[in-house]
Amino acid sequence: MGTGRLEAFSDGVFAIAITLLILTVDLSHAGSGRLAERLLQLWPSYVAYGVSFLTIGIMWANHHDLFRQIGRTDRTLVLLNLMLLMLIAFIPFPTRVVAEFARSGDERRAAALLYGITLTTTAIFFLALWLYASFRGRLLHERADPRTVSGITRSYLPGAPTYGLATLLAFVSPITSLVMFGAIAVFYALSSSLFGRTGDQPTTV
Amino acid sequence: MGTGRLEAFSDGVFAIAITLLILTVDLSHAGSGRLAERLLQLWPSYVAYGVSFLTIGIMWANHHDLFRQIGRTDRTLVLLNLMLLMLIAFIPFPTRVVAEFARSGDERRAAALLYGITLTTTAIFFLALWLYASFRGRLLHERADPRTVSGITRSYLPGAPTYGLATLLAFVSPITSLVMFGAIAVFYALSSSLFGRTGDQPTTV
Amino acid sequence: MGTGRLEAFSDGVFAIAITLLILTVDLSHAGSGRLAERLLQLWPSYVAYGVSFLTIGIMWANHHDLFRQIGRTDRTLVLLNLMLLMLIAFIPFPTRVVAEFARSGDERRAAALLYGITLTTTAIFFLALWLYASFRGRLLHERADPRTVSGITRSYLPGAPTYGLATLLAFVSPITSLVMFGAIAVFYALSSSLFGRTGDQPTTV
Amino acid sequence: MGTGRLEAFSDGVFAIAITLLILTVDLSHAGSGRLAERLLQLWPSYVAYGVSFLTIGIMWANHHDLFRQIGRTDRTLVLLNLMLLMLIAFIPFPTRVVAEFARSGDERRAAALLYGITLTTTAIFFLALWLYASFRGRLLHERADPRTVSGITRSYLPGAPTYGLATLLAFVSPITSLVMFGAIAVFYALSSSLFGRTGDQPTTV
Repeated sequence: MGTGRLEAFSDGVFAIAITLLILTVDLSHAGSGRLAERLLQLWPSYVAYGVSFLTIGIMWANHHDLFRQIGRTDRTLVLLNLMLLMLIAFIPFPTRVVAEFARSGDERRAAALLYGITLTTTAIFFLALWLYASFRGRLLHERADPRTVSGITRSYLPGAPTYGLATLLAFVSPITSLVMFGAIAVFYALSSSLFGRTGDQPTTV
Repeated sequence: MGTGRLEAFSDGVFAIAITLLILTVDLSHAGSGRLAERLLQLWPSYVAYGVSFLTIGIMWANHHDLFRQIGRTDRTLVLLNLMLLMLIAFIPFPTRVVAEFARSGDERRAAALLYGITLTTTAIFFLALWLYASFRGRLLHERADPRTVSGITRSYLPGAPTYGLATLLAFVSPITSLVMFGAIAVFYALSSSLFGRTGDQPTTV
Repeated sequence: MGTGRLEAFSDGVFAIAITLLILTVDLSHAGSGRLAERLLQLWPSYVAYGVSFLTIGIMWANHHDLFRQIGRTDRTLVLLNLMLLMLIAFIPFPTRVVAEFARSGDERRAAALLYGITLTTTAIFFLALWLYASFRGRLLHERADPRTVSGITRSYLPGAPTYGLATLLAFVSPITSLVMFGAIAVFYALSSSLFGRTGDQPTTV
Repeated sequence: MGTGRLEAFSDGVFAIAITLLILTVDLSHAGSGRLAERLLQLWPSYVAYGVSFLTIGIMWANHHDLFRQIGRTDRTLVLLNLMLLMLIAFIPFPTRVVAEFARSGDERRAAALLYGITLTTTAIFFLALWLYASFRGRLLHERADPRTVSGITRSYLPGAPTYGLATLLAFVSPITSLVMFGAIAVFYALSSSLFGRTGDQPTTV
């Protein structure tokens, strides 16, 4: 079975999940007062929207890169991909919770943990999908370059531990944890653009 | 008329319906209290999200498999497909009702019945679409393999009765009924991945 | 400019608008009481969902048929198509209003008028798009069959007056008006499926 | 890397953002009273829906035009495009704010500023994406016509200043500012359709 319709379906879910993030930005999360003040009070919503948009966008680009190496699918890959999409389509929920509670000193920790657990699990499924597809070249194109393949593997390995550490950081300092999630997204976005992209240094999740 | 644009439209509806499921996970369904507690109280929402995501995902894969056998469309097929999409796009509503009421001993039965009736009807339309298309090879590809076709038919027959039984179970035990819906989704997802897929044992709805 | 990307964009809007209809079905529109009663009280929502789903689905199929005759686009066609999509993407709003107010003897008339005005305007833009594209074969394929083209024109002419009459009927009997909208959708869906489809009898809006 | 999947993903975001605009039209923004009155009171929502729909639609057509000149992508283009999509997917929020507050003499200014800042930033990113791609022909098709390319550049330059001026106008007269946003959308839509489109006079943002 080719990968065309699977990629198209995945692209659809990525595009819808990323666009639904706007429902995160909700005026009812701001207190009362003049509209101008309420719009300014919403700044955590704008930041959360931006960080999650960047994160899902990078994941989409990575998904694209993976499937350029993958030449065929089997039912396990379809299932792993479905689990991955289930996590990506879930991201609007923790984004909304962070947007609503980031300014609350009492509740910030729970919001950061929810956000971090979601992204860590997503990174794990990303890695699992890739390891399944690339193990002994199981589902790769015949023309897949071994150096590119091992380069992708190397670059994906730090993703889940990095998100995991940022999540654990929430027990010490929820604010630092949230800042880390933003920094990770910006780092991946900028590093891959500024320094270009070679076969053995692809963007990681 | 070819099936290309019909499949693309259907894929769009599947992708949107599956991603809209996240609107099911709504903090306002949790009681009051600390955010961490409320997030934990939401567990039925997470389960309902996961089960419906898996269910729609499997239906998407099955729809894909059907249309690999179908070579052309007519207006009846377009209409049957539209009815099927109407049911699939409906799934977020019963999912939300189950998420909200699964923990209520009084209301769980009605929620399970709504969910079950929706899935049973969906399975019936899936079967109807396939029987209409495959009857005497009406709309099949000329190269469609008769053993694959009869294999699909055999594997689709148990879908509606299985969902129907799980639905009726709600009169005896709503919890068991809800667990069954999850088990059916997991069974189809795992069985087709673990044991591979042959021409005469395709995944059923 | 070819029509490929315009059709893909239009298909996307059709697919999203039709799937967003589920947001019409909202438990908060039912009164208080047991869940089972509230779910039954929601029946106008289910009917409104079904009728609008069928209506948008038929319009999608018609849009598909039109663009099989249209071979190229210009900016006016892009603009007319955008206006048409603006109306189709609007349909979830009147659907929601009908779902909420169909059972209110006092408010049913306003709801039916809103729904009818939306559909009548949509039918007018459908006709305008087709007349613009087909006038003297302006944007048609060179291979477009004149009999098919004039058949489409003939079959589209009654759409707007029919919806207009059903809308005006709301001044006399809002219920009859609402039933008419459902009947029109079912009529178009069934007539085109039962009697097949020939070059000079295409489905009208 | 080709532009195909990037364009498809972008089209998806455009189509979803434009269709989500309907969530802007919300009966709860109208006061109490009879349904007919409330539907009439909602007129700013209808206007805001129409203007934003037209605006996103024109941006989609422009995006299409740009990518007909662009032959390949790099990571910077992917990132610039992602920032552009982030802004376009944001438009439903200011649209909703304008719809809700346009009738409030006290709050209209803040709403117009939010709307204007969003559109001005969007126009800036549109220009940035194009300048990056076209600078010394970096990512253009080899067959890109220099006159078309410089024509696009010339026609895009006024976009951001025009939106910026309309935004600043909100300090003097919020109503005039809002009317300007509508007039800009209508102007671009009509000018490009009425006078056709030549290689060196493409529609600007």
